[in-house]
Amino acid sequence: MARESEKLWGGRFEREIAPEVEDFTESISFDHKLFRQDIRGSIAHAEMLLKCGLISESDCIAIRETLKEIGAEIEAGTFRFDQKHEDIHMNIEAALIDRIGEPGLKLHTARSRNDQVACDLKLWTRSAIDSVAGLLESCQKALLDRAETFSEVIVPGYTHLQHAQPVLFAHVMLAYIEMLDRDRSRLRDCRKRLNICPLGACALAGSALPVDADFTARKLEFDAALTNSLDAVSDRDFAVEFVFCLCMVAMHISRLAEEWLLWASNEFDFIDLDESFCTGSSIMPQKKNPDVLELIRGKTGRVYGNLTDLLTTLKGLPLAYNRDLQEDKFPLFEAGSEVGKSLAILTQLISKTGIKKDHAASACGRGYMDATALADYLVLKGVPFRESHRAVGAIVRHAASSDKKLSDMAVEDMRKFHPLISDDVFRVLGARNCVDNYRSRGSSAPAEVQRRIDFWNTKLDA
Amino acid sequence: MARESEKLWGGRFEREIAPEVEDFTESISFDHKLFRQDIRGSIAHAEMLLKCGLISESDCIAIRETLKEIGAEIEAGTFRFDQKHEDIHMNIEAALIDRIGEPGLKLHTARSRNDQVACDLKLWTRSAIDSVAGLLESCQKALLDRAETFSEVIVPGYTHLQHAQPVLFAHVMLAYIEMLDRDRSRLRDCRKRLNICPLGACALAGSALPVDADFTARKLEFDAALTNSLDAVSDRDFAVEFVFCLCMVAMHISRLAEEWLLWASNEFDFIDLDESFCTGSSIMPQKKNPDVLELIRGKTGRVYGNLTDLLTTLKGLPLAYNRDLQEDKFPLFEAGSEVGKSLAILTQLISKTGIKKDHAASACGRGYMDATALADYLVLKGVPFRESHRAVGAIVRHAASSDKKLSDMAVEDMRKFHPLISDDVFRVLGARNCVDNYRSRGSSAPAEVQRRIDFWNTKLDA
Amino acid sequence: MARESEKLWGGRFEREIAPEVEDFTESISFDHKLFRQDIRGSIAHAEMLLKCGLISESDCIAIRETLKEIGAEIEAGTFRFDQKHEDIHMNIEAALIDRIGEPGLKLHTARSRNDQVACDLKLWTRSAIDSVAGLLESCQKALLDRAETFSEVIVPGYTHLQHAQPVLFAHVMLAYIEMLDRDRSRLRDCRKRLNICPLGACALAGSALPVDADFTARKLEFDAALTNSLDAVSDRDFAVEFVFCLCMVAMHISRLAEEWLLWASNEFDFIDLDESFCTGSSIMPQKKNPDVLELIRGKTGRVYGNLTDLLTTLKGLPLAYNRDLQEDKFPLFEAGSEVGKSLAILTQLISKTGIKKDHAASACGRGYMDATALADYLVLKGVPFRESHRAVGAIVRHAASSDKKLSDMAVEDMRKFHPLISDDVFRVLGARNCVDNYRSRGSSAPAEVQRRIDFWNTKLDA
Amino acid sequence: MARESEKLWGGRFEREIAPEVEDFTESISFDHKLFRQDIRGSIAHAEMLLKCGLISESDCIAIRETLKEIGAEIEAGTFRFDQKHEDIHMNIEAALIDRIGEPGLKLHTARSRNDQVACDLKLWTRSAIDSVAGLLESCQKALLDRAETFSEVIVPGYTHLQHAQPVLFAHVMLAYIEMLDRDRSRLRDCRKRLNICPLGACALAGSALPVDADFTARKLEFDAALTNSLDAVSDRDFAVEFVFCLCMVAMHISRLAEEWLLWASNEFDFIDLDESFCTGSSIMPQKKNPDVLELIRGKTGRVYGNLTDLLTTLKGLPLAYNRDLQEDKFPLFEAGSEVGKSLAILTQLISKTGIKKDHAASACGRGYMDATALADYLVLKGVPFRESHRAVGAIVRHAASSDKKLSDMAVEDMRKFHPLISDDVFRVLGARNCVDNYRSRGSSAPAEVQRRIDFWNTKLDA
Repeated sequence: MARESEKLWGGRFEREIAPEVEDFTESISFDHKLFRQDIRGSIAHAEMLLKCGLISESDCIAIRETLKEIGAEIEAGTFRFDQKHEDIHMNIEAALIDRIGEPGLKLHTARSRNDQVACDLKLWTRSAIDSVAGLLESCQKALLDRAETFSEVIVPGYTHLQHAQPVLFAHVMLAYIEMLDRDRSRLRDCRKRLNICPLGACALAGSALPVDADFTARKLEFDAALTNSLDAVSDRDFAVEFVFCLCMVAMHISRLAEEWLLWASNEFDFIDLDESFCTGSSIMPQKKNPDVLELIRGKTGRVYGNLTDLLTTLKGLPLAYNRDLQEDKFPLFEAGSEVGKSLAILTQLISKTGIKKDHAASACGRGYMDATALADYLVLKGVPFRESHRAVGAIVRHAASSDKKLSDMAVEDMRKFHPLISDDVFRVLGARNCVDNYRSRGSSAPAEVQRRIDFWNTKLDA
Repeated sequence: MARESEKLWGGRFEREIAPEVEDFTESISFDHKLFRQDIRGSIAHAEMLLKCGLISESDCIAIRETLKEIGAEIEAGTFRFDQKHEDIHMNIEAALIDRIGEPGLKLHTARSRNDQVACDLKLWTRSAIDSVAGLLESCQKALLDRAETFSEVIVPGYTHLQHAQPVLFAHVMLAYIEMLDRDRSRLRDCRKRLNICPLGACALAGSALPVDADFTARKLEFDAALTNSLDAVSDRDFAVEFVFCLCMVAMHISRLAEEWLLWASNEFDFIDLDESFCTGSSIMPQKKNPDVLELIRGKTGRVYGNLTDLLTTLKGLPLAYNRDLQEDKFPLFEAGSEVGKSLAILTQLISKTGIKKDHAASACGRGYMDATALADYLVLKGVPFRESHRAVGAIVRHAASSDKKLSDMAVEDMRKFHPLISDDVFRVLGARNCVDNYRSRGSSAPAEVQRRIDFWNTKLDA
Repeated sequence: MARESEKLWGGRFEREIAPEVEDFTESISFDHKLFRQDIRGSIAHAEMLLKCGLISESDCIAIRETLKEIGAEIEAGTFRFDQKHEDIHMNIEAALIDRIGEPGLKLHTARSRNDQVACDLKLWTRSAIDSVAGLLESCQKALLDRAETFSEVIVPGYTHLQHAQPVLFAHVMLAYIEMLDRDRSRLRDCRKRLNICPLGACALAGSALPVDADFTARKLEFDAALTNSLDAVSDRDFAVEFVFCLCMVAMHISRLAEEWLLWASNEFDFIDLDESFCTGSSIMPQKKNPDVLELIRGKTGRVYGNLTDLLTTLKGLPLAYNRDLQEDKFPLFEAGSEVGKSLAILTQLISKTGIKKDHAASACGRGYMDATALADYLVLKGVPFRESHRAVGAIVRHAASSDKKLSDMAVEDMRKFHPLISDDVFRVLGARNCVDNYRSRGSSAPAEVQRRIDFWNTKLDA
Repeated sequence: MARESEKLWGGRFEREIAPEVEDFTESISFDHKLFRQDIRGSIAHAEMLLKCGLISESDCIAIRETLKEIGAEIEAGTFRFDQKHEDIHMNIEAALIDRIGEPGLKLHTARSRNDQVACDLKLWTRSAIDSVAGLLESCQKALLDRAETFSEVIVPGYTHLQHAQPVLFAHVMLAYIEMLDRDRSRLRDCRKRLNICPLGACALAGSALPVDADFTARKLEFDAALTNSLDAVSDRDFAVEFVFCLCMVAMHISRLAEEWLLWASNEFDFIDLDESFCTGSSIMPQKKNPDVLELIRGKTGRVYGNLTDLLTTLKGLPLAYNRDLQEDKFPLFEAGSEVGKSLAILTQLISKTGIKKDHAASACGRGYMDATALADYLVLKGVPFRESHRAVGAIVRHAASSDKKLSDMAVEDMRKFHPLISDDVFRVLGARNCVDNYRSRGSSAPAEVQRRIDFWNTKLDA
């Protein structure tokens, strides 16, 4: 009889796998990250086998204690991984068998790598979701702190990157808090959908052995056990949805990064980035570069790419498990790691950033940002908005031709464009008046902004 | 004084926009789709202005009735759009002003196109979410109907596109029902997050006029009014999230399409596609092509591309509104439309597809799909799984070398590989036995499958 | 005998295609764009059939003249398309048969829609390549014209969006000319690879009829006939490559758009966008928005999405033709059209944009952009660069602390940081000196810039 | 005076960079791959400085010899990288200065990391292009070898994954050779465009020192020196284009992988994958899984994701260098590595794959693949194609209803559908006849296929 393969799965094989195939198909170089999840999952599985009478109590103890020992060694960096064992699951199982013999040979009863890897990956993702959610909350707190610290500061509000209307700097901070809150909400929903345990699906069809999937699900803190074994081993929705959530985070913080890169430029010069968060140039001695913000913006591409990757991989895959799915780990791990790092550093950077109140104030004097206030002033005097808009447009044109601010114009000059303008007009002109006069829900009115600061203080403390 | 621009916003302009710029920047050729939303939003806005004393009751009536009239004309195809008015919002407002004069000039009070378009787009998306959710449910019902109709049929279950273990055809159908159910769940979450009304944000900062954002929100069936005006006009999260949900749907149905394309091939030949859902060849007279499934699979690329589009557009955009956002409509509309069409036709195709029971059965005889059952048989006799797996591997190798099925081997021959194999082994061999012996939660056991069929019957009827 | 299908390919079908399938699978609503290509290709094919003795001269004349007639009707908008005939190819062939009977029935001899559509699509793409290449050249000329018109103007050069070193505005324009030149080069290579005629591949295997693929290739101005029929009908490389080339164009012009959006902001205020290329706000009377640049930047997402689309569609498609390929047309047509429109309008916008020399000059006074010049000054006096870099860094720190420019410091003060600084240092300080002192190949030295202006003048005129 | 930063660029900084910023911004953990390029580039730069009189001969020798020594240490794994030095460039320069002092301080004269990293990256990419091009050629040779080895074997040709017309297996192999040849052609074009040396651009503006960019360009085997310094430091076209070329390779081999995954299924069973290229299952003892092909298909997502990444990163970046560009390395390195590994293993797998001639032959008997031949037979007897197509469609329908092959029908039965069918019809029916009767250019005719085999033998040997 021909020599059998050394692989744990090698029974039907007469020849060993080619070494270059081993190189190509191994995943231990990246899925070793799953060791905690794999050990936790295997212990729960062993306990279930015990409960169902498929292994003895002593088997279970031997398995559990040895798995913990292996886990501790991996944690300490003393465990020797072997590429021959392909992946983290086989490396751990092989070590277990090597150490305790027969009980170890029983661990994989009523289990396949297909449901095992799905379970490990869900445990990893669930924990990554919790971690990113925490980082988002810290970042919200940092933004809130800036809002409170600089609650009086007015900055230009932009549309089309043109001066539009003055707003409170705090209002800008609050806008980003809103975005990150939607991100947290998305993560919660993703976690809820993920939290179904795939163990018990085995290869794809479930098991003929008397197992208890509900037991394992509870042990691993899932909300429920699988309801369809084919789906359980082929489903990677949770991974794609998590990476999508990360894309949204990356997109949001890329917007903040862009805004602050502008504000840190020599031309805007609204904010003061802490020197310890900047770098210099290898050639230009004067440079103080906002690299952290640029890298945060730049990493957006990576996260988007990870989403493209996963979606592409899953397109058109028939049921149930296909090896293509091994490729899910790279984009999942990378997106989680990159967004986590970006959020952590951004939170610190935000905390250390000051606003240059005077520069912002002087910028607020440019661009006729009080024109809308003037139009609303006329509306309150009964002028239809479109008529008022047109009259103010003409006033702006006139003021611009002589390079004057609206508040520097004489009332008589304004009145040439509309008879209803009178001395009280100066109560609406100028950035401070504009901001103070806002009154609508969600506006940049000081009272509204304060109301939201209070709201977030309560919510983020809870 | 220089001639003023004809545009509603043209007060400060001395020169008309260049015609080629008008061509380039117009959106009426695609955003006319939003006319119902725009009219509904404008009526709610006018009613709010009335309530807040900013327009009179007669103004409000004139606005509302004329807007309804315009809506009816657009519906009937008799309204004349003018590219000069750029977009659907300006086209409708211009017609209103043209028809009723001064009251029309007041409609845009305390409103900007920025919050108006955000509102219209949310209304459109909300309705598209509801429509896709309904199509998903219909598709689930069609799958469920196939599961029930062919509840006895066994097909090969695949991993790595190789015969793995036999499963019930109904179990396969149920797997897809699970996927589509997650899709529905995602849509519900997306709808919940979307359902905040942006009206009242105006351009970006809110309004100095005494408006009531809560009133408008209620009128338009939103859950709440905006909480931050900058965010309200710059947020397109809802559009990206919806398109992402559509990507997941497209991905799921591309998997079904791929599977059925395989099953419809001359080699698999498991299913019978209705001739009315196939097309012929312009050159090969014998062809009966499953084009519908191919197009469903092919359209996945479009939907993925729409997601890439939106994410790219939003990357690094500073606050608040930027014109780049106009480009959100194409991918949003296209993804909604393509996935909707795919789901509708797929549902019909599913309903008309038969399963070729005999072909499936004969396929189940190939590939040693009962090997795992044999391994589990030994486990139940006390053999550690890894030992049993290895022994069965050797049996399969032996059987394959003489081209025999396991159930055709003599017990004695099997016993050479493991002494615990006895006559009762034939109760576990063969596809029918395999399926009947499954017993775990979520497995392809007939009872489990029936339990899920019942579950879905109840849930989908509700 | 059962009724036959009405379709041209309906011989083996007993039932008609379902109307909703007809709706779902039709492509006439978008592939009608290919009518010129289809008619040109069919005429060449008919002439080949004549040459090879497969149709008579009178057949050929009838076919050619009627096809021209149909083409003229489509051009004039008087031809009636029928969705029943699915696509442009069948619509035209059906009309031909309807008008001339038997000769029309012979046109499709030794041809399939598979090679026909591949041929039409290549003809369309080839012509789109030529069109985009022409638009790129026009855009280069517009940039060159700006470079010459404002050849004396100095602007801040940025790295990390921070003031780095002063450069000539012309040098900036020349940088974009380089980018667009690589785009043109890529299009040339794409065209060369595309230019192989697929006609003669028929469905996938070639023909048993005595046809002459070289004849048709020559007639249609291809460089050669196909060399593998399977590849010929399944290859869409040319479409993906073209869309990739368009992504690169879109990326390049998004960079220019971003730069000019910054330069048009109230803070930078370096350029003067022509009013006829800007739009106003529906609410803010003072706004003059650079929408064209924003839309150009925003459309980048569309083109990227089109590439994602095509690549996704092609992934994992087995040979030979699959209906998924019908979906190639949307992204191909859309990318071609969007980039074409963007280039055309950008070229005009560039031509009308002025540079605000004084603002740029005053900006050049900020940010210590002459620090590198000072470091190089010391290098020329024999100081190792790293030492010189460090000394100048300290000088900048000192100057910044008292808010002085380097050129405003006293020599003695500078000498405290390095003894080799003497009075001649003022020959290297200040933006004008910096620029005038550059001398390296490809630098922003006036002579180098002029050399490149001359180069491009010659090359773009040729 | 405040303490100076320890960084080589730290002259103007009073405080050290925060450690977490150092972690976040470092690139040495991945750009260490560029060490060979960096050392080669620095030596060329030093030699240029010598030639231009900016350093002495002894400086140059010290620099060159020490750089070589450092390179040897990195190669041997004995060099100690320090994250404090951020990237590979600073690590090497710091070691150089540490070892030789003042001459080391002079190396960075007239150079910035901006042009240095652009140069290193181009050198790396150029070499990766050459490597992938070589792997493609090897893969073509393996395909050609299969074509020759199995030159007689006929397989079903598919469209819509349905039996279409019979083709030679060799013809299928040749189709993939064509695809890979276009890939090689694209790489050549990419290399040509890349091959311009950016050194001399310095930070962004060129240098005021008397340097010789042409000298360095020649030394590093570039075709020419830069022509625009701003473009030289901000251009990453070469990286994107290379990754795009890799996407096309990945797409092509995903198509082959898919086709062979189908052919290796229990249902098709046309090919025999070498056991050493397959793996087993952890639970199902009978499995022999084609993992290598699945992973090749799965990795397509990664490469597509890398392209999305790069394009996203570059969108809307203003001139010149921005730190976002640091993120270019991940996708570039990863795409190069993944496609390289896939090609290498695929080439070996192809070489070891056998075709199951009998299975293929028996499949060729199904699906009426000779129907087109029958239609062409009638065309050669003067029947218009559309008429012939319709008649044959009816014959197929008739044959299918009684489950007969066309070649098993009686002539009289066929003649009922068209009077021109006579005994010679059997010379065109059946797969062998079909193939032997093809005659057109690029078809699957044996002579055509042999002609192409000869062509490729010559071309690939050259």
